[in-house]
Amino acid sequence: MTAITQIWDSLTDEFSNLEVITEPSQVAKLSLDYFHFSPILEAQLKDKRALLVVRPTTEAEVIQVAKTCVKYQVPLTIRGAGTGNYGQCIPLEGGVVLDTTKMNQIRWIKPGTACVEPGVKMASFDKKAREIGWELRMAPSTYRTATIGGFIGGGSVGMGSINYGQLRDRGNLNALRVITLEDDPQVIELRGDDVQKVNHAYGTNGIITELEIPLAPAYPWAELIVIFDDFLTAAKFGQALSDSDGIVKKMVSIHAWPIPSYFTALQHYLPSGKSCALLMICEYDLEAFSDLVHEYKGEITYNKTATEASKGTSILEFTWNHTTLHARSVDSNLTYLQTFYFSLERVEQMYHYFADEVMIHLEFLKFGGKPIPAGLQLVRFTTEERLKEIIRYHEEHGAGIANPHTYIMEDGGRKVIDPIQLAFKQKVDPNGLMNPGKMRAWLKR
Amino acid sequence: MTAITQIWDSLTDEFSNLEVITEPSQVAKLSLDYFHFSPILEAQLKDKRALLVVRPTTEAEVIQVAKTCVKYQVPLTIRGAGTGNYGQCIPLEGGVVLDTTKMNQIRWIKPGTACVEPGVKMASFDKKAREIGWELRMAPSTYRTATIGGFIGGGSVGMGSINYGQLRDRGNLNALRVITLEDDPQVIELRGDDVQKVNHAYGTNGIITELEIPLAPAYPWAELIVIFDDFLTAAKFGQALSDSDGIVKKMVSIHAWPIPSYFTALQHYLPSGKSCALLMICEYDLEAFSDLVHEYKGEITYNKTATEASKGTSILEFTWNHTTLHARSVDSNLTYLQTFYFSLERVEQMYHYFADEVMIHLEFLKFGGKPIPAGLQLVRFTTEERLKEIIRYHEEHGAGIANPHTYIMEDGGRKVIDPIQLAFKQKVDPNGLMNPGKMRAWLKR
Ligand SMILES: Cc1cc2nc3c(=O)[nH]c(=O)nc-3n(C[C@H](O)[C@H](O)[C@H](O)COP(=O)(O)OP(=O)(O)OC[C@H]3O[C@@H](n4cnc5c(N)ncnc54)[C@H](O)[C@@H]3O)c2cc1C
Ligand SMILES: Cc1cc2nc3c(=O)[nH]c(=O)nc-3n(C[C@H](O)[C@H](O)[C@H](O)COP(=O)(O)OP(=O)(O)OC[C@H]3O[C@@H](n4cnc5c(N)ncnc54)[C@H](O)[C@@H]3O)c2cc1C
Repeated sequence: MTAITQIWDSLTDEFSNLEVITEPSQVAKLSLDYFHFSPILEAQLKDKRALLVVRPTTEAEVIQVAKTCVKYQVPLTIRGAGTGNYGQCIPLEGGVVLDTTKMNQIRWIKPGTACVEPGVKMASFDKKAREIGWELRMAPSTYRTATIGGFIGGGSVGMGSINYGQLRDRGNLNALRVITLEDDPQVIELRGDDVQKVNHAYGTNGIITELEIPLAPAYPWAELIVIFDDFLTAAKFGQALSDSDGIVKKMVSIHAWPIPSYFTALQHYLPSGKSCALLMICEYDLEAFSDLVHEYKGEITYNKTATEASKGTSILEFTWNHTTLHARSVDSNLTYLQTFYFSLERVEQMYHYFADEVMIHLEFLKFGGKPIPAGLQLVRFTTEERLKEIIRYHEEHGAGIANPHTYIMEDGGRKVIDPIQLAFKQKVDPNGLMNPGKMRAWLKR
Repeated sequence: MTAITQIWDSLTDEFSNLEVITEPSQVAKLSLDYFHFSPILEAQLKDKRALLVVRPTTEAEVIQVAKTCVKYQVPLTIRGAGTGNYGQCIPLEGGVVLDTTKMNQIRWIKPGTACVEPGVKMASFDKKAREIGWELRMAPSTYRTATIGGFIGGGSVGMGSINYGQLRDRGNLNALRVITLEDDPQVIELRGDDVQKVNHAYGTNGIITELEIPLAPAYPWAELIVIFDDFLTAAKFGQALSDSDGIVKKMVSIHAWPIPSYFTALQHYLPSGKSCALLMICEYDLEAFSDLVHEYKGEITYNKTATEASKGTSILEFTWNHTTLHARSVDSNLTYLQTFYFSLERVEQMYHYFADEVMIHLEFLKFGGKPIPAGLQLVRFTTEERLKEIIRYHEEHGAGIANPHTYIMEDGGRKVIDPIQLAFKQKVDPNGLMNPGKMRAWLKR
């Protein structure tokens, strides 16, 4: 018997009371995420596979899985909906994938705050929360499928970020309950600033079994498309709308032509050659909004009330990284970047410099109190070399790149090692079993 | 019979069906406002008196008053609660004061929007609106007494401005109904951008008889005092709190020592020598808030829940221009300035440069999307010459001064003539009867 079949037998034995997935095509599917948006990651990760997937339904079962992984020194990688873009939930060293989707209980929802299990899907949570007038402060464009735990573990921004900034901003996550990977797994509750030990840690710092999250008032969000003759006017409009403190909004997404041509289902509203804004605006503020559109000589081609919007496909699913999804379904040679431009001047410079090679897609968000343009630009991929050159040019010119072409946590957004997360890992995962290979701080310690 | 008694007789005759106040001490009281915060205005305005005061209760009665004033070519000055600080409602040329306080019906309140008569008091409005979970987007510290019409006519910012900016920002006023002073007074409805024709026009551009205003979600606002060893740390804390997109707040008011010494009723919470922050923070975000306080080494000395705060005197009544009120009640030699510092660097420079002569009081507000420090600094008044010098120094160093020592509209905040307001005035008040002497554009036309 090889070591691997021995482990296999031990695990299936230990997990006999749990839902375990071993069927190879299922395991393959549950071992991967949306890493393929990056040709670099595609090559590096496409063959990675878990040994098996386990789907606990309670915290007690999570503790059982943790204990077993420690006992056999098997890597453990947590998976929510598996919609991450950087291979965050791909098990580099095989082992167990812990799928959280059956831990989907909402514990309670109160005005302003809620408590949920990690596998709760964001859209279904909001449906409940809206019954009492609240909703998530922010959510990615994978809102319909992604889990709240996965968003905390691997996400960062989304619709709502124009109001509340990024997930890591103080106040956007109240508390977490995590299970450690010690010989005797512990339950730790983190509150306030302490949540940062686990926030956006790619599941390397304990298994989240419960989250307390802050909510936002649920306005009726109208969904609109505004078209502009040229991109720079659209971008300026986006900034002006973001800066309009008297107009309540939830999303400001700007697309340079030819990006709108990739939105097949919206072609009716997107005339050829026009740049566009995809927007979520508070219904009560639509009159002021239309004055602003008028000032920027935009034309509203699509205007759905919140009720109408809730019925069909939300405009959200053409924004954030869904833009890349649609573009790639037309031209699979496209990939993307994630950029803090910080200012429109820098957007303009990059727009002219790269021309058609880098098509600009902006999402406005709050950054330290100020609305700034961030980019999820589409890049016509040629070589890895050229992609690096493009990144370097941005960085040399003051833009911040959150590189989506690496699965190493620190090499993506943060750049530097986080001593607090490292110290916490030493405590909660002393054997380095959690999602191994993703945290540079641990690899280099 | 002199001309004046002739007019007197005609007016009292025409107004026989209305509530008219002619008793001299009453008329004197209703001719003045809080202009005395300025020693300059005090000297210029203290003797100004209306001929009589009329208190209509309906729009029809307003039209009657308007028609009568045109007929006899008598000046008409509108008064809400008369809490303005620049003599906005002081009748420079006598005539009729139209008191709106009996036009105090709330027409309707819906989620996000409400429609009111001009004489509705802000605090009493909020009491009603909160029954359905909403409140005013912003309100001055005279919230308990001031009218909504007077705030639009003569106010500009207040609690809530850290979220919604200034009254004049697009979206902060939906619609107005105004009565003109033509021979045959007309009713005009202004919506959207058109409201700017009347917004902050000191009652020179028609009589507002109805307002449609946008609302904000009514959070439970905790009231807090935080003390700091030194002012600059308090100021930096104020900026950081304002920049914290994940912490929902309604007011960020910072006071350099010795200003806290003037808050007699709060002495228990304000140890000698400490600078302080007076704050309204969403109860749901208090945990994140206290982490921020900790980071800046502040100490929370006062912490009332929203329910507790609603019972006693609100902390609001020590902020905005109530700070000046309290300071002047201790030392009547004090006056004040209104300043857009725009940045903390400029605050720091002024703090060092003027030392004790100009005591710094900051209110943070949104300005074009960004939270900036504005000042309502207390000035130890010596001479008008020196006051002008202080203003000049600020302006020469990049601060914007909204001069509270002038009753001329344009010389206060706006500085330049507003061609749109002037054109509108030509239409609605062709004889220049409304609050004469306040609009430079009209005087210089
Ligand atoms: C088309 C498309 C659009 C996208 N748009 C956005 C966007 O707008 N904003 C954005 O931020 N992201 C976006 N993403 C990325 C991703 O969809 C989101 O971040 C999403 O919230 C991830 O949730 P998930 O449930 O799929 O997490 P997964 O991908 O399953 O997991 C993400 C990470 O969290 C960890 N994790 C999951 N559950 C736990 C747990 N219980 N405890 C500890 N760690 C855990 C995992 O190990 C993994 O490292 C997009 C992706 C795609 C494909
Ligand atoms: C202690 C103190 C603190 C203050 N704090 C603030 C503050 O935080 N923010 C702020 O902005 N202001 C502040 N003020 C100024 C003032 O209190 C406010 O602007 C208040 O909203 C004015 O309302 P009022 O009803 O008293 O208006 P009034 O003073 O009666 O009138 C103000 C102006 O509006 C015009 N007006 C009134 N009603 C109408 C109408 N129906 N149609 C057309 N024009 C009309 C009047 O002619 C006048 O020019 C403060 C004043 C004091 C004394």
